Amino acid sequence: MNRRPHIYVLNPNSSQIVTDGLDRAVQPLRLADGPAISCLRLPQGPAGVQSQTDIDTLIPHLRAQALSVKEDAAAYVVACFSDPGLYTLREAVDVPVLGIAETGVLTALSLGQRFGVLSILQASIPRHLRYFGAMGVTDRLAADLAINMGVSELADEKKTLQRLTEVGQRLRDEHGADVVVLGCAGMANQREALEQALGIAVVEPTQATVAVALGRCLLGW
Amino acid sequence: MNRRPHIYVLNPNSSQIVTDGLDRAVQPLRLADGPAISCLRLPQGPAGVQSQTDIDTLIPHLRAQALSVKEDAAAYVVACFSDPGLYTLREAVDVPVLGIAETGVLTALSLGQRFGVLSILQASIPRHLRYFGAMGVTDRLAADLAINMGVSELADEKKTLQRLTEVGQRLRDEHGADVVVLGCAGMANQREALEQALGIAVVEPTQATVAVALGRCLLGW
Amino acid sequence: MNRRPHIYVLNPNSSQIVTDGLDRAVQPLRLADGPAISCLRLPQGPAGVQSQTDIDTLIPHLRAQALSVKEDAAAYVVACFSDPGLYTLREAVDVPVLGIAETGVLTALSLGQRFGVLSILQASIPRHLRYFGAMGVTDRLAADLAINMGVSELADEKKTLQRLTEVGQRLRDEHGADVVVLGCAGMANQREALEQALGIAVVEPTQATVAVALGRCLLGW
Amino acid sequence: MNRRPHIYVLNPNSSQIVTDGLDRAVQPLRLADGPAISCLRLPQGPAGVQSQTDIDTLIPHLRAQALSVKEDAAAYVVACFSDPGLYTLREAVDVPVLGIAETGVLTALSLGQRFGVLSILQASIPRHLRYFGAMGVTDRLAADLAINMGVSELADEKKTLQRLTEVGQRLRDEHGADVVVLGCAGMANQREALEQALGIAVVEPTQATVAVALGRCLLGW
Amino acid sequence: MNRRPHIYVLNPNSSQIVTDGLDRAVQPLRLADGPAISCLRLPQGPAGVQSQTDIDTLIPHLRAQALSVKEDAAAYVVACFSDPGLYTLREAVDVPVLGIAETGVLTALSLGQRFGVLSILQASIPRHLRYFGAMGVTDRLAADLAINMGVSELADEKKTLQRLTEVGQRLRDEHGADVVVLGCAGMANQREALEQALGIAVVEPTQATVAVALGRCLLGW
Amino acid sequence: MNRRPHIYVLNPNSSQIVTDGLDRAVQPLRLADGPAISCLRLPQGPAGVQSQTDIDTLIPHLRAQALSVKEDAAAYVVACFSDPGLYTLREAVDVPVLGIAETGVLTALSLGQRFGVLSILQASIPRHLRYFGAMGVTDRLAADLAINMGVSELADEKKTLQRLTEVGQRLRDEHGADVVVLGCAGMANQREALEQALGIAVVEPTQATVAVALGRCLLGW
Repeated sequence: MNRRPHIYVLNPNSSQIVTDGLDRAVQPLRLADGPAISCLRLPQGPAGVQSQTDIDTLIPHLRAQALSVKEDAAAYVVACFSDPGLYTLREAVDVPVLGIAETGVLTALSLGQRFGVLSILQASIPRHLRYFGAMGVTDRLAADLAINMGVSELADEKKTLQRLTEVGQRLRDEHGADVVVLGCAGMANQREALEQALGIAVVEPTQATVAVALGRCLLGW
Repeated sequence: MNRRPHIYVLNPNSSQIVTDGLDRAVQPLRLADGPAISCLRLPQGPAGVQSQTDIDTLIPHLRAQALSVKEDAAAYVVACFSDPGLYTLREAVDVPVLGIAETGVLTALSLGQRFGVLSILQASIPRHLRYFGAMGVTDRLAADLAINMGVSELADEKKTLQRLTEVGQRLRDEHGADVVVLGCAGMANQREALEQALGIAVVEPTQATVAVALGRCLLGW
Repeated sequence: MNRRPHIYVLNPNSSQIVTDGLDRAVQPLRLADGPAISCLRLPQGPAGVQSQTDIDTLIPHLRAQALSVKEDAAAYVVACFSDPGLYTLREAVDVPVLGIAETGVLTALSLGQRFGVLSILQASIPRHLRYFGAMGVTDRLAADLAINMGVSELADEKKTLQRLTEVGQRLRDEHGADVVVLGCAGMANQREALEQALGIAVVEPTQATVAVALGRCLLGW
Repeated sequence: MNRRPHIYVLNPNSSQIVTDGLDRAVQPLRLADGPAISCLRLPQGPAGVQSQTDIDTLIPHLRAQALSVKEDAAAYVVACFSDPGLYTLREAVDVPVLGIAETGVLTALSLGQRFGVLSILQASIPRHLRYFGAMGVTDRLAADLAINMGVSELADEKKTLQRLTEVGQRLRDEHGADVVVLGCAGMANQREALEQALGIAVVEPTQATVAVALGRCLLGW
Repeated sequence: MNRRPHIYVLNPNSSQIVTDGLDRAVQPLRLADGPAISCLRLPQGPAGVQSQTDIDTLIPHLRAQALSVKEDAAAYVVACFSDPGLYTLREAVDVPVLGIAETGVLTALSLGQRFGVLSILQASIPRHLRYFGAMGVTDRLAADLAINMGVSELADEKKTLQRLTEVGQRLRDEHGADVVVLGCAGMANQREALEQALGIAVVEPTQATVAVALGRCLLGW
Repeated sequence: MNRRPHIYVLNPNSSQIVTDGLDRAVQPLRLADGPAISCLRLPQGPAGVQSQTDIDTLIPHLRAQALSVKEDAAAYVVACFSDPGLYTLREAVDVPVLGIAETGVLTALSLGQRFGVLSILQASIPRHLRYFGAMGVTDRLAADLAINMGVSELADEKKTLQRLTEVGQRLRDEHGADVVVLGCAGMANQREALEQALGIAVVEPTQATVAVALGRCLLGW
């Protein structure tokens, strides 16, 4: 590897706005003596990943993209809360590959006893529940509730925060969540305001995951 | 729908031998006043589905194939023990879509208290375990053990039966399984001999799943 | 076996009305080249199975009834949502014996991620929960709620549908169920209307179970 | 209640030898100012309860027996490790009814982190597993292994202890059990010797359960 | 041991009022031919155990106290619903050591299918959930809800009963609890009135635990 | 905070050798523009933390130590695989507090599907199992096996590696582990050699945890 090692944050949708949001969110993790961190959108991906079809259609493209930057890749982060292609990428490369759903939830497990998830759409929830089941962490789940806004609507940050707050309060008060995970990469800049509003820990999963990727790069395992 | 309704059994690998084996296996489910049952191989699929990359690469093709026969499809069965594309197909069509891993395991749950799985390769097992976790049935799993033979090697039926018997005995005697699921569509014709050899129930998942698909077609839900 | 093979649907209560309802419900599963399907009431059974005492008192009679038709029995279905005598019948005969609670729930597991159950009485619920625990599927349960109507009251189909709809909406909206199981054999003819009303899949467990029994008969295992 | 209140220990098999063994085992729990403790065999019961058919056939008789001594009953203990009729008896009477499987296992949960069970026959194990699942304690189970001796054979105490020791060592060393439950009422007098032999806690479930029944009688709840 | 054997009920807070309440509560378990039962407050303990810091600070003192009465101790009961020091005491002495959370919950498991817990403070709940997880009984938990009263406030018995009743009704009606555990030793005298008010079983955990300790003393294991 | 912010790695035993090992292990995580990382031994702690008594006795001292360096503490890591005092420290300070058992296991969950644990002593295992239960991750555990060496013996690195390898192979081959966690802070320098020997991922929990602490410091949450 001649170039500086990179953590590649792969946003599997085609939105530059979402990608820029991720880029700002991971800024504190860029260090003088750490790896570079590059956020890439997937030009062939959907505008927002909202269905299983979106997921299963984009993976071959995501895999190709990952391989195309393989030379200086020190780690990859799949920045979509369905972790599309996570295991296929792990088969394709020898460096760490982390998914923001997996690592976001694992991070929540050290911040509270029962985690709530704020999903964008009702249709995402059964998919998430299957994933939490595969992870074996269902007993720690308070609830997964939808704010009922599509990925593109999240650009309206004020409305998004309002919905996140309303549904987050239900997670906290009705379902006993003491930590909340933002269930979409497109909410990356809402963490602090929402934590303020709810008074319990809020996990922004891309930040959480890039932080873990940074650690793995530094340790070399 | 002008033509007779069909249950399409989609073998997502390209092997005609495996497809022919499935075709023979489902013969008892073809009834005069029931749906036709057609087994299709996936020409663009791998020779055998053995990795997550295989799975994630074939799904777009499998989806296209499913849509291409949509007109007379009364139900679909995904005939690979990783259930590739199961949820994408469910989004694509309005008729029942069943996967042989899901329905094979659910069938086992009414035949014994602890199910064992006979996988082809060690590398399949973590993937299966994630799936059983997603299904929420981990507490019923005795163990998932590999016979360490690739899909193509299964054509040697004698050797396959010998390996299935050896590992099946370990599932029964060391892990307490009282029912065993064949963890690959390519073992479709081994059920009876293995059941004889082990003395406990053996589930051939494609048969089990097409049977359920038949019932769903007849009931119309 | 000289006579045509039969699937015996054993309704363990003494109600002819309930038995006739089952008979109509399984009509689509009667095929020219399939087994006959006979629905029997249990003359010595209670008017409706509502307590553990009802269950534990009727089993010896149910066993005797099953044995009395053993000669041409290709499979048995126990058509009561407490699956009374399921394991005793399995010990008594060599053909498949299926229970509508077990198979109804297993069927739901391929139709949604979280199943709700509509029970008749509050007192049934702890019994059901024990059963779902024995099945190892508690993690998939959204909730089990009672409509608070006895078996005999179910004859009022309009009132029953109204109650099923009200409580089904609570399962869907408050508890996150995306599939609902009718928790009593006496609701056999409500499936379609309720599915229409709720907009999510509804499992009529006797239909689901006889369909599976049909498949097992055809496959011969 | 004119007579002194009684704890009735209901042995649901017809064996006087087993009943006498229970009678000796509970002797330390007979107190001057506590309830009387009477152990009854079930004349209509099987010689030993070994199958689900045995269980389901005896319950009506067990219920009648329980009701026949209702007048001075302060509590009942069902002294068979399948807890036959437990919930039917709870419906029949207003005093505490405890089962030795349920209370034996709950007792083990405060004596070790992973409990093993010593069953008489292989065929008992799936039934036990369903029960532990219904109790929701599967995560605490190390394993349930059979000593492969029928109830009547247990009268050979020397051979029984030898088999209990051999299989108990496997529970401890191969399965990580740190407490063992005797899975049959007919082993009532082996506890101390087995505990000595294994070096980990051994629960004799009838003693454990009558002790809890005594406490409930004294407290009046 | 020259003196009569004692069950030592160790209240790890310094409150004489709470200790006196426990003393009255266990009165029915004092028998002529049973062990003496002494309730001790911990002078160095906090006024009420409300935080993890309280717990972790008091354990060395609790251990010293337990050892100071070791000579005539036949069993110990840790009478605080966080079971502080339970495993340290088990290492320190050779007689049974029981905790009221552990044994209180195990007792509830034979009185209903889903247990609710009435905690004093919201902050206790994550700690309880970790404990129920360690016990492996999470699947049986209906919910753990706080009455939002500190230990010292419990002296107002009328207000306490009112809050217990309100929150207990929510456990029963919204969360499906059919048995309730009082989640603080300071509620020892409310059991009967609350059971009356709720119409479902209520476990007073110190009584339940001393009863089990009594049984263990009598049996000598 | 005038001084540079620090991550304090609190080794709760008194061993300078173990502390020096940790110091070397975290060296790669010291960055020019990141926090300082200081490893402290606990002078009042035991030579090695091996029992629950060790744990419960040291926590007050550990808490005092943590508070004594509070001024420049940006995060704390409790570097003992029993995570002593984790929740008490979380109550005491406002910065992140992480435990190496919790974070070590969570790290393993993204490196394999079934994690094995290499404990020092048999007596540690029930304590670990309770903790994994509290974390709700029992379904992911392959097994926890002891190498049967005390903390002080670990200084013999060659013998330690040999024992780790032998028992690690059992975790991999007999129990199906595909990732292994070193279950003691005193094995900090064995990770790489063991990973080489086993051919599956090995987690050194102090490294893993300090890496996560670093990320949390950088993100400021």
